[in-house]
Amino acid sequence: MKENGRSGQADLLAVLAAGLVAHLGVVVDGHPMVVPTVYGFDDERIFLHGSVASRSLATGDAGEVCVTVTVLDGLVLARSVFEHGINYRSAMIYGVPVPVTEPGDLLHGLRRLTEHVAPGQWDYARQPSRKELAATTLLAVPLTEASVKISDGPPDDGAGPDAALGLWAGRLPLISRWGDPVPDPLLPAGIAPPPHIAGRAGEAVGG
Amino acid sequence: MKENGRSGQADLLAVLAAGLVAHLGVVVDGHPMVVPTVYGFDDERIFLHGSVASRSLATGDAGEVCVTVTVLDGLVLARSVFEHGINYRSAMIYGVPVPVTEPGDLLHGLRRLTEHVAPGQWDYARQPSRKELAATTLLAVPLTEASVKISDGPPDDGAGPDAALGLWAGRLPLISRWGDPVPDPLLPAGIAPPPHIAGRAGEAVGG
Repeated sequence: MKENGRSGQADLLAVLAAGLVAHLGVVVDGHPMVVPTVYGFDDERIFLHGSVASRSLATGDAGEVCVTVTVLDGLVLARSVFEHGINYRSAMIYGVPVPVTEPGDLLHGLRRLTEHVAPGQWDYARQPSRKELAATTLLAVPLTEASVKISDGPPDDGAGPDAALGLWAGRLPLISRWGDPVPDPLLPAGIAPPPHIAGRAGEAVGG
Repeated sequence: MKENGRSGQADLLAVLAAGLVAHLGVVVDGHPMVVPTVYGFDDERIFLHGSVASRSLATGDAGEVCVTVTVLDGLVLARSVFEHGINYRSAMIYGVPVPVTEPGDLLHGLRRLTEHVAPGQWDYARQPSRKELAATTLLAVPLTEASVKISDGPPDDGAGPDAALGLWAGRLPLISRWGDPVPDPLLPAGIAPPPHIAGRAGEAVGG
């Protein structure tokens, strides 16, 4: 943590809990590449599927990565175009990814990854077979070097000369919710979504 | 475009139109850095505020960047954990950012940037003064080298052996909407949000 304090760590974990997709930045042959990916985390590490970065990992060129998780909370609409902006929460984690190979730790990381986006699915769905585990590359990046940025609040020009323009100013919130589950067309009739899925319909994300 | 075709270009523009925040990847002293930022675009370029990358631009170390825009459409919930995934649309644009300095082009780019997230605000709010324009660094990355990835549809294991497990499988859509405008606490009474803002409440984003 740049802030190196307990509140910094709490802020970081809160952003990771609120986000759904991370953007993984790697350097490949000197060029940056930014790839969206799901993630999971515990108090010490963020977990990513190795497949997402395999091209660079395969060449041994991965080195340090930057994992950024962003939650967009809304727009800041000011009286002047110049003061417009967004409210968001963002975490940037820097580190060298470590492959997770120890079987118990691999299961732990995969469970975190699944449960982060789909709580309840690890126990409901069929868990990975030995063959599937052998085909899975899971990467962990320590949470030790990270920074959190939170932008919140109203526009900045309410007390300045532009206030005299008489224009409306404020925030336009963005709200993400889970919709109604859509069954697989191949699903036989009579199989209803379990409560941990059906119960999410309408639930807000990122709060 | 990797695909180098009209459909590729149309897909790219559709993803840029659907997204709200880009993740800009730059290489600073050999290390990747991924920063969230708003953007605008026209048929040929994506525009970014220069402030977002100023640290690396200031050191002359920016070089090529990767700009990734991702729209998360929902979760793919399969019968096995192994087949879980996300449905999303993503565009990756590679190129060397060009500062936009010609006054007419700068206004064009800033207008695109403002109007992308807040259509109607460029004409409603106070437009940039000369002083503000002089303090603004706008970067443009050409759309010539880009790739689009779209993942859609149901889980993959509906016709395999796991179908016999009798578990529910399908998609859980994610739907983002604008909320009700929240007035700046400093806003005098009697100034209502204009229709181009008030009318967005409830409007879906990214469709």
